[in-house]
Amino acid sequence: MPPGEKSQVLRGPDPRQDRAVRTRAHILRCAAEIFAVRGYPYTSITDVAQRVGMTKGAVYFHFPNKESLAVAVVEELYSRWPRTLEEVRGKGLSPLDTAVEMFNDAADAFQNDPIMQAGTRLQNERAFIDAELPEPYVDWTSLISTLLREARDLGQLHDGVDPDQAARVTIAAFFGMQHISENLHRRADLKERWLEVRELIFPLLRAHEGRR
Amino acid sequence: MPPGEKSQVLRGPDPRQDRAVRTRAHILRCAAEIFAVRGYPYTSITDVAQRVGMTKGAVYFHFPNKESLAVAVVEELYSRWPRTLEEVRGKGLSPLDTAVEMFNDAADAFQNDPIMQAGTRLQNERAFIDAELPEPYVDWTSLISTLLREARDLGQLHDGVDPDQAARVTIAAFFGMQHISENLHRRADLKERWLEVRELIFPLLRAHEGRR
Repeated sequence: MPPGEKSQVLRGPDPRQDRAVRTRAHILRCAAEIFAVRGYPYTSITDVAQRVGMTKGAVYFHFPNKESLAVAVVEELYSRWPRTLEEVRGKGLSPLDTAVEMFNDAADAFQNDPIMQAGTRLQNERAFIDAELPEPYVDWTSLISTLLREARDLGQLHDGVDPDQAARVTIAAFFGMQHISENLHRRADLKERWLEVRELIFPLLRAHEGRR
Repeated sequence: MPPGEKSQVLRGPDPRQDRAVRTRAHILRCAAEIFAVRGYPYTSITDVAQRVGMTKGAVYFHFPNKESLAVAVVEELYSRWPRTLEEVRGKGLSPLDTAVEMFNDAADAFQNDPIMQAGTRLQNERAFIDAELPEPYVDWTSLISTLLREARDLGQLHDGVDPDQAARVTIAAFFGMQHISENLHRRADLKERWLEVRELIFPLLRAHEGRR
């Protein structure tokens, strides 16, 4: 047992700290719900406090300003993917199907998860946010590249398909699809559009399969 | 000779009107250069007037406010595609290669044409513009769909490829690619990324061709 864990057991969990973590997560989710709909410039800490049901001061205790809230939402979004990958890995799919399943999960998140919706919108509005946001697309590109390289090493990628190139192209198609769906139909057709992308592009990547 | 043309000849060209058209186009281009770099909220009519080398009043003579400038830039962008299509049609390519050439042209424009760069940025910032912009992606989808339907009717599309679906997916991949390239590398790698998308996706659409 590492020393940190032992002393944690000796001290026992700190209920104040636990509550602070939950409060912070609640504020973050409420902020995301507003950012997702109104965008960064039209969201205020007052709006967030009202939705959370706290005073502005209580919100400021966790996030010193609106910039830090935006950064935290985007960081929360990016922390999602390693967890999701671990879950999906647990299903024991092939690397290529694991990649498809990651996109399936992201498509769900675009429709149902305010952190995903807000994080993506904030990235598009980064020019108006006076803080450094984590670089977009980089984690996804590395995650999908890794899976497609594994697929190649197992002979599951079609001859001549470069895993890094295929990762960039599938990510471009996926994010372009969701962006257009959001702009034209508030994402109402997102699932249908994603199935279209998946159906057209993924069979091309797969070894030993008919062209369609 | 149609009557309009005849009377135009009789009256001769109106030099004042001609100059007004050129001035308007010049203002539009200068505005696009600033919108493309700073975005809508951080661009002012004063900035535009300075770049044009005119008074603010002279700019207001052509565009009553910043909203109308933004709308005009986006309209100017969208008026580009029918002209480009006519030019590309003149090359006598197959419908599928005409579609590819339209994307090639758009990739060039993303790197070199401030109207394209500004128009796309303004669409992304439409939540902050208090005016109705023309709907994005719709013209492109219809243009590429039409070409791919022609390709299908000539037997040039691969069996089972639906032209409308393929139009949506190629447009998603193209616009997603440029968006990521813009965000990560200020479009420095755009041409390379477009070639990647083209190389991976288009062979799939074409009838009677090896898978890669």
